[in-house]
Amino acid sequence: MALIVQKYGGTSVANPERINKVAERVARKYHAGNQVVVVVSAMSGETNRLTSLATEVSDRPSLREMDVLLSTGEQVTIALLCMALHTVGVQAVSYTGGQVHILTDDVHSKARIKKIDDKKIRSDLNSGSIVVVAGFQGTDENGNITTLGRGGSDTTAVALAAALKADECQIYTDVDGVYTTDPRTVPEARKLEAITYEEMLEMASLGAKVLQIRSVEFASKYKVPLRVLSSFEEGKGTLITSEDQLSACDKEESKMEQALISGIAFNKDEAKLTLVGVPDQPGVAHHILGPIGKANIEVDMIIQNVGLDNTTDFTFTVHRNDYERAMEVLEDVRKELGAETVTGDTKIVKLSLVGVGMRSHVGIAATMFETLANEGINIRMISTSEIKISVVIDEKYLELGVRALHTAFKLDQVGV
Amino acid sequence: MALIVQKYGGTSVANPERINKVAERVARKYHAGNQVVVVVSAMSGETNRLTSLATEVSDRPSLREMDVLLSTGEQVTIALLCMALHTVGVQAVSYTGGQVHILTDDVHSKARIKKIDDKKIRSDLNSGSIVVVAGFQGTDENGNITTLGRGGSDTTAVALAAALKADECQIYTDVDGVYTTDPRTVPEARKLEAITYEEMLEMASLGAKVLQIRSVEFASKYKVPLRVLSSFEEGKGTLITSEDQLSACDKEESKMEQALISGIAFNKDEAKLTLVGVPDQPGVAHHILGPIGKANIEVDMIIQNVGLDNTTDFTFTVHRNDYERAMEVLEDVRKELGAETVTGDTKIVKLSLVGVGMRSHVGIAATMFETLANEGINIRMISTSEIKISVVIDEKYLELGVRALHTAFKLDQVGV
Repeated sequence: MALIVQKYGGTSVANPERINKVAERVARKYHAGNQVVVVVSAMSGETNRLTSLATEVSDRPSLREMDVLLSTGEQVTIALLCMALHTVGVQAVSYTGGQVHILTDDVHSKARIKKIDDKKIRSDLNSGSIVVVAGFQGTDENGNITTLGRGGSDTTAVALAAALKADECQIYTDVDGVYTTDPRTVPEARKLEAITYEEMLEMASLGAKVLQIRSVEFASKYKVPLRVLSSFEEGKGTLITSEDQLSACDKEESKMEQALISGIAFNKDEAKLTLVGVPDQPGVAHHILGPIGKANIEVDMIIQNVGLDNTTDFTFTVHRNDYERAMEVLEDVRKELGAETVTGDTKIVKLSLVGVGMRSHVGIAATMFETLANEGINIRMISTSEIKISVVIDEKYLELGVRALHTAFKLDQVGV
Repeated sequence: MALIVQKYGGTSVANPERINKVAERVARKYHAGNQVVVVVSAMSGETNRLTSLATEVSDRPSLREMDVLLSTGEQVTIALLCMALHTVGVQAVSYTGGQVHILTDDVHSKARIKKIDDKKIRSDLNSGSIVVVAGFQGTDENGNITTLGRGGSDTTAVALAAALKADECQIYTDVDGVYTTDPRTVPEARKLEAITYEEMLEMASLGAKVLQIRSVEFASKYKVPLRVLSSFEEGKGTLITSEDQLSACDKEESKMEQALISGIAFNKDEAKLTLVGVPDQPGVAHHILGPIGKANIEVDMIIQNVGLDNTTDFTFTVHRNDYERAMEVLEDVRKELGAETVTGDTKIVKLSLVGVGMRSHVGIAATMFETLANEGINIRMISTSEIKISVVIDEKYLELGVRALHTAFKLDQVGV
């Protein structure tokens, strides 16, 4: 008997008909002899509906009250799913985040889970019940309702799987797995059978929006095998697990060993800013990024060119929504530091190769740059980590670049 | 400084615009130097929306899960009202029933409040905040979400007022007070300035749907002065309080002393059933009403005629929705008891005179019967209590009967 945590996203529970379908799927898993915990999101559209109600009463709704408001979305779904499970004849009980003591910090709208009390859930499972838990939400130490932020239901599922030491955490979504790149951009994109936590983290953080980053971190930390599957089609989806477990699988199936690159991710949500002609002196990065951080703007890539004439150019990327604000802050910094000018560009895209294979193989960066050069694509920024290489290019070259790299690294070919 | 509990019903918070209006009204009360606790219902239409979602996934949704589902309605409103209060510049914090420990029994969909922990609310009030609490809901001892049933938000408000020893509990609704009878039926209906708990109980239980019965019982038990007001118009509404306090007011204002009758209530939701020719023997009432009770059918009026030939006729009224079922049960009872026939009628209406003045005045029943007789209205059943006289008449005579009585008892005249 396995203990499975399943998570169904908003589109999977978008209406009563789909909720009935989810109930059937969950019941099958249960009748196959598993203990099943289900985590659900709000029905798709519901969060937007609630948010627009809020904006009608307040320009800047309090974060605490937004959490009270939005958490009702998942509460509706847990009740409906339990009713649907009863209809197909299985025992089921629903809990809000607070009811199963998903204890979080008190950062409203993006709280982090600190502890989960699994007593209630275990006792229900042992008495033969399916347990349905509201994703995305918890309560802080004072009993205030908190939410985990965008995609937080994934995190709830993984955290529950970790607390319950579940055999697998299955994330049901509207895609049937993790692809080598976005299939909408590259039709040749191929579904991966498996991928490591690290690769998935790079893929996720770089814009492959299959899973929420924090849930993958959580899964990695607690070694929870994670599987991404489609709610609408049958299939084995993509398994996300540790490198050790993955190579154990590989040996069995003698696959994937030569895979250098798992995928190509891209992110169109960034903008880049450059402070030109900064006096090249110690502490300059801090002088620039300090005020940006204070303005609560998150910085992604950072590049400082080698200085000429005792000056240097300092470039970084931020989310496009933060671009205007970042420009303002940077203008103040420019005056303070006596730098020449501030320039910026929102029409860029970040494109990244991801793969644990990079660790043991040289020449991947060279192949990447060569491939892009052959297509006449100018690289504006480069940044690397142990298992990824990111470049910033002009937005218009996105499709061309991704497709060229997809072919160059043979990602179109199954089983390579 | 007074402590006021205000309750706003579904139509008062039907949309963001109305919620903003409620916020302004609450803020005025607060700025006038009062401590204010606000209890809200779900936005009107929301409960129906949720219920129809439930019926789409289940023919007979579990009561526990219905409570989980429906309780989201009020949770949405508390968050929105707090946001609206912040917008008008006052401090406010929202709580679900569970968060302020409104402890109930575990009877889902019609739970009763057992205890309220007022610590959190008091502390917030003392720090200058308005406290907004979700009506209609609580949690049982095991932390399961419960709801109080139809109109339960009134009960929440009164229970909170009692727990907090509030100076007044104000129920804002879509009518501007309690009337001598339904103004839609009798245009001459007059708004009452004050009424006793007992009268209000009779009025409420007899179909004047201004306040939920249980909330008036609660108010009476804990001597909470209750006031019914309109959310949409200014005005002092109707005060519902104890006879002692009322006569104290009366002396000051030298009013209402001669009022024999406070109002005329009527109820069109009943149906009557008669078991004809029952052997007149001890225990016959129990034999008939036992099975009806077991079928979970509530009985209102009961009349047993004096027996002739050792048989008797037994008549009682039930809610119209229960009529078919009650007929079936009664048919079984008929066979068992060897009674003659079962007859029934759904086209009836119950009409009641209510007033504490009856206690000290004779002849009220006689005047009532005479008035109806003068209009040619046949009385089918009669039932009396200390402060009310109810008759069942044919439905078609409802308006005629109420208007005739309204005039006969001079209810049209202000200050009588």
